[in-house]
Amino acid sequence: MEQVNIGIIGFGTVGAGTVEALLENRDIIRNRIGSEIVIRKIADLDMESDRGVDLEAGILTTDAMEIINDPEIHIMVELIGGLESAKEYILKAMAKGKHVVTANKALLAEHGEEIYQAAEKHGVSLAFEASVGGGIPVILSLREGLAANRIDSIVGILNGTSNYILTQMTREGLPYTEAVQEAIDLGFAEDPPTLDVDGTDAAHKLAILISIALGIPVPFNRIFCEGIDALTPHDIQFASEFGYCVKMLAIAKNVGGKVEARVHPAMLPKDHIMANVNGAFNAIYIEGDFVGPNLYYGLGAGRRPTGSAVVSDIIYLARQIRHGIKILIPPLAHAHPQERPITIEGIEALNTAYYFRFSAVDRPGVLSKISGILGDHGISIASVIQKGRGIQGSVPIVMLTHEARENAVMEALALMDRLDVLTDKTVLIRVEEG
Amino acid sequence: MEQVNIGIIGFGTVGAGTVEALLENRDIIRNRIGSEIVIRKIADLDMESDRGVDLEAGILTTDAMEIINDPEIHIMVELIGGLESAKEYILKAMAKGKHVVTANKALLAEHGEEIYQAAEKHGVSLAFEASVGGGIPVILSLREGLAANRIDSIVGILNGTSNYILTQMTREGLPYTEAVQEAIDLGFAEDPPTLDVDGTDAAHKLAILISIALGIPVPFNRIFCEGIDALTPHDIQFASEFGYCVKMLAIAKNVGGKVEARVHPAMLPKDHIMANVNGAFNAIYIEGDFVGPNLYYGLGAGRRPTGSAVVSDIIYLARQIRHGIKILIPPLAHAHPQERPITIEGIEALNTAYYFRFSAVDRPGVLSKISGILGDHGISIASVIQKGRGIQGSVPIVMLTHEARENAVMEALALMDRLDVLTDKTVLIRVEEG
Repeated sequence: MEQVNIGIIGFGTVGAGTVEALLENRDIIRNRIGSEIVIRKIADLDMESDRGVDLEAGILTTDAMEIINDPEIHIMVELIGGLESAKEYILKAMAKGKHVVTANKALLAEHGEEIYQAAEKHGVSLAFEASVGGGIPVILSLREGLAANRIDSIVGILNGTSNYILTQMTREGLPYTEAVQEAIDLGFAEDPPTLDVDGTDAAHKLAILISIALGIPVPFNRIFCEGIDALTPHDIQFASEFGYCVKMLAIAKNVGGKVEARVHPAMLPKDHIMANVNGAFNAIYIEGDFVGPNLYYGLGAGRRPTGSAVVSDIIYLARQIRHGIKILIPPLAHAHPQERPITIEGIEALNTAYYFRFSAVDRPGVLSKISGILGDHGISIASVIQKGRGIQGSVPIVMLTHEARENAVMEALALMDRLDVLTDKTVLIRVEEG
Repeated sequence: MEQVNIGIIGFGTVGAGTVEALLENRDIIRNRIGSEIVIRKIADLDMESDRGVDLEAGILTTDAMEIINDPEIHIMVELIGGLESAKEYILKAMAKGKHVVTANKALLAEHGEEIYQAAEKHGVSLAFEASVGGGIPVILSLREGLAANRIDSIVGILNGTSNYILTQMTREGLPYTEAVQEAIDLGFAEDPPTLDVDGTDAAHKLAILISIALGIPVPFNRIFCEGIDALTPHDIQFASEFGYCVKMLAIAKNVGGKVEARVHPAMLPKDHIMANVNGAFNAIYIEGDFVGPNLYYGLGAGRRPTGSAVVSDIIYLARQIRHGIKILIPPLAHAHPQERPITIEGIEALNTAYYFRFSAVDRPGVLSKISGILGDHGISIASVIQKGRGIQGSVPIVMLTHEARENAVMEALALMDRLDVLTDKTVLIRVEEG
């Protein structure tokens, strides 16, 4: 097979980056794989915008079915995003015997099972490197590079927008709303950036990574999500005094056969390798039982990095097509999927250390009330910072606890919310020692 | 193909880690690949030592030829190290139609071309993930994950022993010889650790990475190597005052069609993602024209991490064998190798910033003499530290230069070595802004 034909559905940012990589590095890619990759069709409703790439006449169409119905096309690349239409196109393309490349994390996290089964049924491959971590080949690494390992934990900075916002809150001391506005103004965030800052996007990506590690789709809606909007620059400053930075982390851990899966702001020691992951960068820290800790780091979004990942999938499939292979490795990289479903442990069972910032009235006895309630719930205090500086009329009392159980913490905080010596809801950040 | 048979030559640390991973994670691996991997034979001259793994009787042999001549064995795993015997066994196994997995970086760096050609001639695959970066899947990433990119630079911490020594010099302020002795005592270094500290081992690994990026073997002996033995804790301390850490780096850059390839101690900004790569960890920082900067990090050596990499190669080949494929991707991941040979630029043409530590007599006019010579050679000074603290009877003058050309620097330092106001050879560290 000297030529592999592809059709692309969706000619936005990622589509343009994909085309750009295929055209700009055409010689390099041909030398690597031994075949020519030919773009036969690109479907998009917008036929007018200049994407900064030169295409031959007649390649652009508004009708995705032209790609799905073209028997000469080996690979359909789905880059329109969203759920319903994307799923429909992918299933139709698979039914026509086409391999599929997609960057659609929401679709795979929420409807992955149906798509993985369709790929198997129709004997086609599905590749989705661009769905997690932009250009970082983390899916490849989980599927192949770490295949000798039981995966014990995955800790990721999986959303560049929220990482950018936290980085600016840290570096410039900006309040959350200002950092968000700056990210929107600079094009790092949509307006409003809801799915980025509330953890949904990171949870989509975490679900995909867990699915590959275990070989079975994850019940996505069981992943706990907490956003970054309650954080203030004060919290970041206090965390720093304790020796930690604050990152939005997506965490999955294998705890005695159950899976802990959660997305929330977390404190990470400043000398952790992920502490220097700043701005729009993503990183995934994976521990395997043989390999130990591994880190994968790079740009988590953007036209060219995401284009790199999509094209790596096209190359991966082209190399197989050249050898007449339909499915070398199934979507979740397990020939025999695990039989029992994945049980995701509820957040209430979590054991971890906590940071609390209490907003207290400046009056004697407050610390004793707080620590009394914590003691009653078996939560022991590791260190306390109490300083004169007031935040909006109240005095912050900041604590780091030893390891405690989340349900005890929730009960204690609910009791404290009713104390008249506390003027505001308590801020909580979970600690990830890594 | 429901069973893939392997034979292992060399049952030392890595061999034992390989067997341990195959046995301990047998169920996980079978579920992933859909085949059973069966260890048919292990050859080693030492039949007695306890490797901590349970083997069936009759698997151990002293005769490697039993593996090579066994027609039932699909994959030979070479883990004896060294050059001549290893090469002979690999070539013989390939001639018998066996795929080969090896961890032998010295062999591939120095005799790779002959082995790559033999693999092609006999229609077998060669896999060597464990040869670079221990358990880190960096070879997989270069061969596949970054295949859409022109690779612009590779900067690696590729030798865990030298990184451990520098980390201890940094953290504990130990002199070089003491840090080396500690590394030997703790089993992190051989006695003496010559190839680790003089850069040869890192250069072997760098040669392999460049070869994959460009698709053609590298003239290994053209890679510039400088060891870490001239460094003192003072230099590390001064570097820190300038905002840098000191790492042993293996650097390859694409400069206008030529390749810069060098291994030497280098100063790296403290906020660089590689600044927190400490102890026995390795990391590889790769820049591609689409993906931008990527980092891969993990343990660079050791029984279990290296076992992870060897077994990932076995799994990679087993998945192909199951589908009847002989060579999915050639050893250097290029179906059409680049035609013109790689030209490695000599170190004299390097342009970079430099750190100098001059050992001066405590007398007026010394700084003027030094800066005069630097100025005559077009080397401009970015900052100077001159402090009262004497090192062995002389006063250190420490400088950071702007970008300068290596041959001008060498000429200037040669002149200065003849000055009677300098009491010792000048220490030089190249700066890598990353």
